[in-house]
Amino acid sequence: VSQGRRLSELAALVEGEVRGDGERRVRGIATLGSASAEDLSFLTNAKYVEAAARSRAGSLIVGRGGEVPGKDLVVCAEPYFALARLLEVFHPATPPPPGIHAGAAVAADASVDATASVAAFAVVGARARIGAGVRIEPHATVGEDCEIGEGSVIHPHAVLYRGTIVGKRCTIHAGVVLGADGFGYATHRGRHHKVPQVGVVVLEDDVEIGANTTIDRAMLEETRVGAGTKVDNLVMVAHNVRIGRGSLLIAQSGVAGSTQLGDGVVLAGQAGVVGHVRLGNGARVAAKSAVFKDVADGVQVAGIPAQEASSWRRQQALLGRLDELRRRVAALEKAAAGGPRESADGKRGEP
Amino acid sequence: VSQGRRLSELAALVEGEVRGDGERRVRGIATLGSASAEDLSFLTNAKYVEAAARSRAGSLIVGRGGEVPGKDLVVCAEPYFALARLLEVFHPATPPPPGIHAGAAVAADASVDATASVAAFAVVGARARIGAGVRIEPHATVGEDCEIGEGSVIHPHAVLYRGTIVGKRCTIHAGVVLGADGFGYATHRGRHHKVPQVGVVVLEDDVEIGANTTIDRAMLEETRVGAGTKVDNLVMVAHNVRIGRGSLLIAQSGVAGSTQLGDGVVLAGQAGVVGHVRLGNGARVAAKSAVFKDVADGVQVAGIPAQEASSWRRQQALLGRLDELRRRVAALEKAAAGGPRESADGKRGEP
Amino acid sequence: VSQGRRLSELAALVEGEVRGDGERRVRGIATLGSASAEDLSFLTNAKYVEAAARSRAGSLIVGRGGEVPGKDLVVCAEPYFALARLLEVFHPATPPPPGIHAGAAVAADASVDATASVAAFAVVGARARIGAGVRIEPHATVGEDCEIGEGSVIHPHAVLYRGTIVGKRCTIHAGVVLGADGFGYATHRGRHHKVPQVGVVVLEDDVEIGANTTIDRAMLEETRVGAGTKVDNLVMVAHNVRIGRGSLLIAQSGVAGSTQLGDGVVLAGQAGVVGHVRLGNGARVAAKSAVFKDVADGVQVAGIPAQEASSWRRQQALLGRLDELRRRVAALEKAAAGGPRESADGKRGEP
Repeated sequence: VSQGRRLSELAALVEGEVRGDGERRVRGIATLGSASAEDLSFLTNAKYVEAAARSRAGSLIVGRGGEVPGKDLVVCAEPYFALARLLEVFHPATPPPPGIHAGAAVAADASVDATASVAAFAVVGARARIGAGVRIEPHATVGEDCEIGEGSVIHPHAVLYRGTIVGKRCTIHAGVVLGADGFGYATHRGRHHKVPQVGVVVLEDDVEIGANTTIDRAMLEETRVGAGTKVDNLVMVAHNVRIGRGSLLIAQSGVAGSTQLGDGVVLAGQAGVVGHVRLGNGARVAAKSAVFKDVADGVQVAGIPAQEASSWRRQQALLGRLDELRRRVAALEKAAAGGPRESADGKRGEP
Repeated sequence: VSQGRRLSELAALVEGEVRGDGERRVRGIATLGSASAEDLSFLTNAKYVEAAARSRAGSLIVGRGGEVPGKDLVVCAEPYFALARLLEVFHPATPPPPGIHAGAAVAADASVDATASVAAFAVVGARARIGAGVRIEPHATVGEDCEIGEGSVIHPHAVLYRGTIVGKRCTIHAGVVLGADGFGYATHRGRHHKVPQVGVVVLEDDVEIGANTTIDRAMLEETRVGAGTKVDNLVMVAHNVRIGRGSLLIAQSGVAGSTQLGDGVVLAGQAGVVGHVRLGNGARVAAKSAVFKDVADGVQVAGIPAQEASSWRRQQALLGRLDELRRRVAALEKAAAGGPRESADGKRGEP
Repeated sequence: VSQGRRLSELAALVEGEVRGDGERRVRGIATLGSASAEDLSFLTNAKYVEAAARSRAGSLIVGRGGEVPGKDLVVCAEPYFALARLLEVFHPATPPPPGIHAGAAVAADASVDATASVAAFAVVGARARIGAGVRIEPHATVGEDCEIGEGSVIHPHAVLYRGTIVGKRCTIHAGVVLGADGFGYATHRGRHHKVPQVGVVVLEDDVEIGANTTIDRAMLEETRVGAGTKVDNLVMVAHNVRIGRGSLLIAQSGVAGSTQLGDGVVLAGQAGVVGHVRLGNGARVAAKSAVFKDVADGVQVAGIPAQEASSWRRQQALLGRLDELRRRVAALEKAAAGGPRESADGKRGEP
């Protein structure tokens, strides 16, 4: 990329249309604030229209209908998706060479594909099976009987307890713990007795798990995360939870035991869901909300306890006018007692 | 267990009573949804009564008074406790052989009991004392002057800072950090100066700590977790906190500095407690609640800020009727102004 | 310190004034509850005035105007700051000897200062630069092209992804993950496509990061934490966030992508801030609050959604009187219908 790539060539890669000089050379991708004339920048959030106009970027990726005077544009139906593709072009991944580092500890009866890489201080337990092209980074710990599908990456310090199954093309970030014991105790005469957690964790294909997130093993059978689901950092997924395909769990959210999430569910940041309930396909939970009962397909909820988002917004509006309501009641009381009506902005001591 | 065990034999182990065929052979324990005729399943949550009836399980553990037509039953006073015991029978633990792995780093003056196991890449610091039957898994880091009591398990990647004391039969899951510095700074002329944290963390016997939970060392003396207390994943326990015996801290809850929790306290998921307060014995904090002041023995609280749960429920009910209240006030105003009374479902522009 | 230090000498170190016997010998520092006559204790929180009077401590650090009958006092303008200094005196740090442990994995082209220490099982990647006096503890993983400034400490199991920059005198606690991928996906025809995260994380000087906290790398350019900012445990800082100088992020708080925090900002425990907003210098967010829009300089906010703290407190007070308001409306309705006015504490079925 030293000479840069022609804007028209980049546009073709993302099925975009050039508006302006397709011969312009692009050296890199940069944000609006730091791009130079040789960079391609992007406008994917309407909040930044003015910043785009002020930017020194020579060219911009924009959505259909996007206009930024004085810039050469690549117009795309989905500009953020185009950006993702072009970042890959300018920043190709560089996997380590295949092979098992001399400083790794791999059990004699583990099976590691010849195209996989296992780094220094990584541990691969007995009978584990590591697929083609898998990358196991330093200090990752893959327990006995684990399986890791083709093309997955296990970042440093991730821990897979015994029996964890990871699908193809998954990414497990640093510090993730898959398959620790679920939090299950039988309380007998005031003492909490551990209920053995003998199930496993299963991640289907194309799942990504963010740093320091924990997904507990099932008491029996499995805790399962569906294909294409993405989980952010510091998320808690409890034992026997089942999450469908293409769901998004944002940072610090949590799901309690045995709850089921459908396909395409979104939990915004710091949201929580109680145990033993079901969120339907496409259900969405607002940030910091707490869900205590089932949510039907496609429904958005917010609040603690969570209710339908439209209802929550109405309640918030009413709350904002609670003081006004109080004043109106005071005025009515005064009128009823025979006095003059209180003025709209009046304050008085209440009975 | 290849031939299975007789149902009557299993019932005897849990002081249960067989209702049906005590000679039935049981090969394993399974959930209602996946059990076959040879499996023993369980009904421990009333929510699943119908699922129990539909299940293909041949036999079921149920509570006193439980009835599931067509199944052989083990009737127990505490079915979940019975389940815990029978899971142990069908899934016995298989500890690794004792000894120090050649790839571990154990300080010359550390004391490791001959019956303990120390895995590859584990670190045991100077003067640490490791008790009988302790299991230290790969990559666990046990700092200088730590003590680990008989029968405890330290899972991969757990970190015990210098001086941490762990009692007997404790389980420390992967990624747990015990004894990192408390968050203490003296702010002087706008700069935050670190207050040295020179105390320790002490876990009494039979404590379990979930994955990626952090318990900070005390500024002076100790942060202490009482015997039999169980802490879930991603929980934060700050410096100088003291937690009593048999308490339960559910996932993503947090306790700020110097706060004291009594015995048998329950913090539900994502709950928080401010610093320098006291929660009495048996206090219970609802999910997602935030406690800002003392809670007396046995009191249940909920909300942000937390109040007594009954009061919180009443407030929630009132909130749900706030729109109705607003309409009633509007109707009174209209009547007072001489107009006809607004109909119950009426909407109008408000003054 | 075996003979102890004279109280007058300690007072001089903290610019304090002795009230009482300056010749008293002090052997150590202890809390009010456990101090003996030979210890120096402290009164830094008004909540503990009675405990100070009851304490067996021989001497106490107190603020100006502090009075504790029968104790020798060191009176300081800032007693907590004085305590920090004296803890350093009684508990001096003991860094490990410099050098690279034989069991560490350091890339041939990494640069490690001769005064730095690298412990067993630590990993230092290609082209990384480790400054003077840096301490890299067991199992810490420092990726390719990272830089660690003079005097910083990287605790066990911390992970620095490729390209992370850590300033001088920083402390990175166990389990911290710096530079994992930001949570960025372009959703195209129902599938979430990863947006490459090719930026880095930069920590300026004197930053401390608590155990198991995660700070994601930027999509492009950098996620930055300003000089002197302190971050507690289990905090989430998302991609492209920028945090100013001297801010405090308390445990389990989170900041979503591209948000900017000014200087001296405080996020209390379990607080959250949505993406793409700005918190001005000195803004303060109460515990468990959720910020959904910009906050001006110096403003304190609370609640979900967060509003100005004074307004939030007023709303809470109104909520506490909602039941009373409902009763007053019922009384007005009864009066309007011709009946006698309901008594203040009356309860009745509502229409």
